[in-house]
Amino acid sequence: MNAVLGLDVGGTTTKALVVATDGTVLHEERRPTAHATDPLPGLAAELDRLTALAADRGAAVVGAGVVTPGLIEESTGTVRYASNLGWRDLPLRAGLQERVAVPVTTGHDVRAAGLAEQLLGAATGVADVLLLTIGTGIASALVSGGRALTGGTGAAGEVGHAPVRPGGELCPCGQRGCLEVYASGAGVARRYGARTGTAFSAAEVVGRLGSDAVAREVWADATSALADALVTATLLLDPSVVVLGGGLTAAGADLLDPVRAGLAAGLTWRPPPPVHLTGLGPLAGCLGAAALAMTHAGLGDHLAGWARGRRPVPTGTG
Amino acid sequence: MNAVLGLDVGGTTTKALVVATDGTVLHEERRPTAHATDPLPGLAAELDRLTALAADRGAAVVGAGVVTPGLIEESTGTVRYASNLGWRDLPLRAGLQERVAVPVTTGHDVRAAGLAEQLLGAATGVADVLLLTIGTGIASALVSGGRALTGGTGAAGEVGHAPVRPGGELCPCGQRGCLEVYASGAGVARRYGARTGTAFSAAEVVGRLGSDAVAREVWADATSALADALVTATLLLDPSVVVLGGGLTAAGADLLDPVRAGLAAGLTWRPPPPVHLTGLGPLAGCLGAAALAMTHAGLGDHLAGWARGRRPVPTGTG
Repeated sequence: MNAVLGLDVGGTTTKALVVATDGTVLHEERRPTAHATDPLPGLAAELDRLTALAADRGAAVVGAGVVTPGLIEESTGTVRYASNLGWRDLPLRAGLQERVAVPVTTGHDVRAAGLAEQLLGAATGVADVLLLTIGTGIASALVSGGRALTGGTGAAGEVGHAPVRPGGELCPCGQRGCLEVYASGAGVARRYGARTGTAFSAAEVVGRLGSDAVAREVWADATSALADALVTATLLLDPSVVVLGGGLTAAGADLLDPVRAGLAAGLTWRPPPPVHLTGLGPLAGCLGAAALAMTHAGLGDHLAGWARGRRPVPTGTG
Repeated sequence: MNAVLGLDVGGTTTKALVVATDGTVLHEERRPTAHATDPLPGLAAELDRLTALAADRGAAVVGAGVVTPGLIEESTGTVRYASNLGWRDLPLRAGLQERVAVPVTTGHDVRAAGLAEQLLGAATGVADVLLLTIGTGIASALVSGGRALTGGTGAAGEVGHAPVRPGGELCPCGQRGCLEVYASGAGVARRYGARTGTAFSAAEVVGRLGSDAVAREVWADATSALADALVTATLLLDPSVVVLGGGLTAAGADLLDPVRAGLAAGLTWRPPPPVHLTGLGPLAGCLGAAALAMTHAGLGDHLAGWARGRRPVPTGTG
């Protein structure tokens, strides 16, 4: 049996999957991201450990995909800048490939998640998918015809600083009225805290919607800003399906219903695309990384089978 | 000598080109668009006339490209809806192909213009180009890796109704604060007229910038709205070059300078892409139509020579 590795290195958590080439998930784990001065030796050791672990389960690893946030030069696999990881001009792909035997490919976490949603998530088989991930920050990916749009400098999808409320509240980036000010996890928590003096997380604010008028007001501002951003993105990109991912999707219908209503209300002369919550949860990026490894290994035509062959992902095995 | 035809059917004007396959423009003409109940016979007669005209000049026509505004189903060449032409569910490609001998291909006017700008205009050789056309209305095209993004329903690029000023002035579409309200030719003329009671065109408003405070205010609102829309589009799409096209580009530096400044000011953590005025003027769509015909005729690899081989376009020959 052959397998690939998927590694999703986030600012807080690193997630890893071992996936058989038929789509069966053999192993899943999550652990806090190690913030080393030189991250390459640690990541290489991680890939070696996962390769050995796969071998213990009878699987030969034929490739590894590693995805990260930030600005990634797709042609070279160099991470130009990833603020949450403190990386600048890190030759991720070349540096890992020097250190490990399995073929390594690299990519952007949100674009990989978009591919995974299209492959086996909430937008399976749809050619034009817009994924909006709403976590601490906000980013997006457009998959068009199975290809994730990267842009001229690898920075496509950074919609978090779109000026949805021109002249609005100040963003840590220095601008006013950015989408993240109102609708990111950090923004929701900060805006609630500024009004009440209480430090609640965005999830806690959502938990108070039934009983707390300030929570309702802050959340309405968030979903309204998200809907406006989706109106603009829909007009520009014309996605067939919009998928919402990231931590704030735990809000469920409290997120989905007002965003759907706002998007429909903002589009007068064209129907809105359907909006779904992620079908893959926090593993979307990791599954996308594994899918990149499949393609890199020349096994891209096996990916169509993943949606059919995918087994339930084990949890808590890390 | 072989040649292709490019036909750009606009709401007001129809433009036509006969272009030799080496890129030499053999003939150019413009005339008012005929608004017939069934436009197919007239358009077919036009293609036949241009084919005969090319033959008179010693050129055999090997293909024709016809581009239009509206929602176009690229796979079938059916125009689902083009409000300025009054077309709905018009089988443009099939209907023309039934009537004329030369192979016909069809496309979207602004996307074709984007391809032309990339091929031989203001963004020659650049892989990721955003074209924003600012005329009576506002539309855009993203060319990524030589391919114009169409979207799931052929409606990508319709940025004119993006809510750049949420809760702002009423748009004829029924929404408030759309980009076109502030920055289209129609919008500039309407806003100036509402303040002064004088019916000036957008070009006349621009002509009064040196002497008329209301004109300056209306124009500042227009360029500020355009810059904000470009900030969002840059964050989403990461174009390497932004090209401004359409009638309002006659404003020259009065358009370019404030839009460049506003785009740079709105992007705090990434450099702005360069912004250029169209290199092809009102012929961009027509040249793009001819380029589509080249590709359809299997001559796509000759297009690289167009930028080198292109002769000055004759004017006033219609």
